[in-house]
Amino acid sequence: MQLIDGKAVAAQIKQEIAAEVAQIIAAGEKRPHLVAVLVGHDGGSETYVANKVRACEEVGFKSTLIRYEQDVTEEELLACVGRLNIDTDVDGFIVQLPLPKHISEDKITEAIDYRKDVDGFHPVNVGRMSLGMPCFLSATPAGIVELLRRYRIDTSGKHCVVLGRSNIVGKPVSMLMIQKGYPGDCTVTVCHSRTTNIREICLTADIIIAALGVPEFLKGDMVKEGAVVIDVGTTRVPSDKTRSGFRLTGDVMFDEVAPKCSWITPVPGGVGPMTIVSLLKNTLLAGKRVIYP
Amino acid sequence: MQLIDGKAVAAQIKQEIAAEVAQIIAAGEKRPHLVAVLVGHDGGSETYVANKVRACEEVGFKSTLIRYEQDVTEEELLACVGRLNIDTDVDGFIVQLPLPKHISEDKITEAIDYRKDVDGFHPVNVGRMSLGMPCFLSATPAGIVELLRRYRIDTSGKHCVVLGRSNIVGKPVSMLMIQKGYPGDCTVTVCHSRTTNIREICLTADIIIAALGVPEFLKGDMVKEGAVVIDVGTTRVPSDKTRSGFRLTGDVMFDEVAPKCSWITPVPGGVGPMTIVSLLKNTLLAGKRVIYP
Repeated sequence: MQLIDGKAVAAQIKQEIAAEVAQIIAAGEKRPHLVAVLVGHDGGSETYVANKVRACEEVGFKSTLIRYEQDVTEEELLACVGRLNIDTDVDGFIVQLPLPKHISEDKITEAIDYRKDVDGFHPVNVGRMSLGMPCFLSATPAGIVELLRRYRIDTSGKHCVVLGRSNIVGKPVSMLMIQKGYPGDCTVTVCHSRTTNIREICLTADIIIAALGVPEFLKGDMVKEGAVVIDVGTTRVPSDKTRSGFRLTGDVMFDEVAPKCSWITPVPGGVGPMTIVSLLKNTLLAGKRVIYP
Repeated sequence: MQLIDGKAVAAQIKQEIAAEVAQIIAAGEKRPHLVAVLVGHDGGSETYVANKVRACEEVGFKSTLIRYEQDVTEEELLACVGRLNIDTDVDGFIVQLPLPKHISEDKITEAIDYRKDVDGFHPVNVGRMSLGMPCFLSATPAGIVELLRRYRIDTSGKHCVVLGRSNIVGKPVSMLMIQKGYPGDCTVTVCHSRTTNIREICLTADIIIAALGVPEFLKGDMVKEGAVVIDVGTTRVPSDKTRSGFRLTGDVMFDEVAPKCSWITPVPGGVGPMTIVSLLKNTLLAGKRVIYP
């Protein structure tokens, strides 16, 4: 069993991005600028956004955090999106999800100019990804594919089983894994809460991407020898062993599954760090106007 | 074995649409108007477009056919799309594919106002479909799902194997079959040219949607007893038994496969007629401004 070290890969890609930013600045061009909009004070969201802002600083981006209280109206938030859309100093921006119940996430996401949608959540980017056209790839699926690429893991003709059908992981990563080329060309099976024989299906998988959000769902007896296992789960489970009072738990029962795998991602330190790096890559592409002129 | 009679279902839906058009006219409102743009004189395209125009007339739509010769420039075609986009008399329009090699199909498709994209090929509609949002569903996948619905074929938790990963059938129909609700909630496997053990996978399928474009690919020994088989193939194969000199051949070896099926679509008379009906439904929705105000 070999560990896929997402933390190390992410660090390397950050260095690559930082080097490119240094070149951009040396050439007298504009520093890429990411804006993050955060509504309310949800603990998870606070952490995610803080990590994103810190990552921007590490690679030399300009970053701005815009905060709203929990009671911000949809109208106010849409006005903010409108301002960011036309602000030529802003290359890309994200509105951290989830939003309070009185605000439509679909409406906000669709209001974002798809050319600045570095989260890759806008229907134009989702559609272009599905069609195999250049686009801002949604961060977690892009991070998964990048890990497979960096570790040169063979995908062509392999059976990839995706656990979960969410809009932000399950559906897009399954679309990426069936695309022509590398990484891709997989036979892909998408399983979810309605799947009846999930164990049997997992046992036929060469690659398993677990994104159900069910802690330690994937057990040792569900994985065949030599499989590649990518764990996307990051559920916060209470713990008396950490200072924060919780620990991040993946969808994979690591101790049981790892010994059977050829490759496996840990949680934390696997897919998580790659997600932020994907966001940085999209912001760099946005700054350079590579995908949309 | 029972036959899924796409021709009969299509005729019934056409009646339903015609009744709705009659109501619209009786209420003094505008007759839905579909424009089809046809470039060149490809035999298949000529037939498809002629069928679409005829179907429009059958249900009481206004229809217009715009023809260009094979040597039309991309610029001219884009200008045509631009005119149709702003023409308030036009509710929806299609540009029949394939286009000549000197014209970018992606460029033309993206230039179409997604609110008039009744083929459902624009990235916005593809993305919204994937996200489970209201949209113009691409015609063939929508027709397949409608057949399952009209025949009340159970899909929840069933294993649906999709053969083919094209942008117009394989990918979108797999996205529809994993959506929550009915028809949907399937465990979906997408197979394609790189799949190594396609026979074994097909043998586990409760529902097979064959959309490879390989005549008679699916043999009797690839299908389990009681399976539902949807044949999307329509390859023109030379024949000395028809006046036209060819016959439409599906992706399924019907004589071998049919006896094992619970339900099966014939070719012709299965999915084909439903595709045009989906286009009519989208045009009706466009005329009524149901999806996009």
